[in-house]
Amino acid sequence: MSRSEVSINLPEWVTEELASKPKIYPTIKDRMKLIIEFSQLNIDHETGGPFAAGVFEEETGRLVSIGVNRVMPLNCSSAHAEIVALSIAQRKLDTFDLGGLGLPSHQLVVNWRPCLMCYGAVIWSGVRSLVIAGSGPELESVTGFDEGPFGDDWVEELENRGISVVDGVLKNEAVKVFLNFNKKGMFVYNSRHG
Amino acid sequence: MSRSEVSINLPEWVTEELASKPKIYPTIKDRMKLIIEFSQLNIDHETGGPFAAGVFEEETGRLVSIGVNRVMPLNCSSAHAEIVALSIAQRKLDTFDLGGLGLPSHQLVVNWRPCLMCYGAVIWSGVRSLVIAGSGPELESVTGFDEGPFGDDWVEELENRGISVVDGVLKNEAVKVFLNFNKKGMFVYNSRHG
Repeated sequence: MSRSEVSINLPEWVTEELASKPKIYPTIKDRMKLIIEFSQLNIDHETGGPFAAGVFEEETGRLVSIGVNRVMPLNCSSAHAEIVALSIAQRKLDTFDLGGLGLPSHQLVVNWRPCLMCYGAVIWSGVRSLVIAGSGPELESVTGFDEGPFGDDWVEELENRGISVVDGVLKNEAVKVFLNFNKKGMFVYNSRHG
Repeated sequence: MSRSEVSINLPEWVTEELASKPKIYPTIKDRMKLIIEFSQLNIDHETGGPFAAGVFEEETGRLVSIGVNRVMPLNCSSAHAEIVALSIAQRKLDTFDLGGLGLPSHQLVVNWRPCLMCYGAVIWSGVRSLVIAGSGPELESVTGFDEGPFGDDWVEELENRGISVVDGVLKNEAVKVFLNFNKKGMFVYNSRHG
């Protein structure tokens, strides 16, 4: 790989785990449960931060792609779980627009509200639905991550662009992973403050 | 490359062009001139949208990396010029934090205000300075791109995080490229509106 090429890959354990998992996740709780499990596995394996995301077909619940945070192992500050999952889904489906003509409606499921970068990535991606475990101050207060400057109307801004939002799915289970991340004393990278 | 790996690469002409260019760009105008030239070349070569970005050492003006928009050729909605340039710079320097200890201050130069996704990416990247050609309604009105929901205090939010902003460098030259893009009748992809 040339120095002017960037490769975003998943850790090997992801493929191994997926081999024994169902292909279809009927309810949004089923989908979130899988994503939260992968967020925990990502810190257990020390292959990135406590985040996972998955792209599903909204109607059928078929898992299209999964992503985990890869910032530190890949030295790439944009390799958040959401960007990884969306990019792999687009590669698998050979499209830059997951909402393109002829495609089923796609849903992104994440174990917390995306940071501002990934919020923007959701808008560009073509997904029609965002499902998150929570959006409150818990993530920033537990991990210290700076999620960026959100407007109060962040849900409305998505809905105005045809992306529905479901918040609060298995919230306590998601927060538990952030607490586990802290307990491990893992390094928290961050943007600067002044 | 596996289907669960995403590779972000530059078109071949970028390497060829760079071979005949200086390594050092003393002033921010010199830097912006290069970036605007590459934004035009990207549409001339039909290798992506009308955007380029470069990471420079702020003090010396050394070019660390350049990126161009690669969304359509790579089927990756996150492959905006800024993400490409920042990711390549991080790969070259083996760090996820361009503002890390022992590194010189890095500057991102872009031919317009980054979209909301890339605005978030700037915050995470570790750059200490953002230089843009413009930030007004010209880009959205000429190209139809939806840049996302920005707060009025978007500059202050960067400055609070230790990232200075210089706006309005070679603005007319930058707008000219967007007009050329439109004249070519090139396809404008976009997020949805309701």
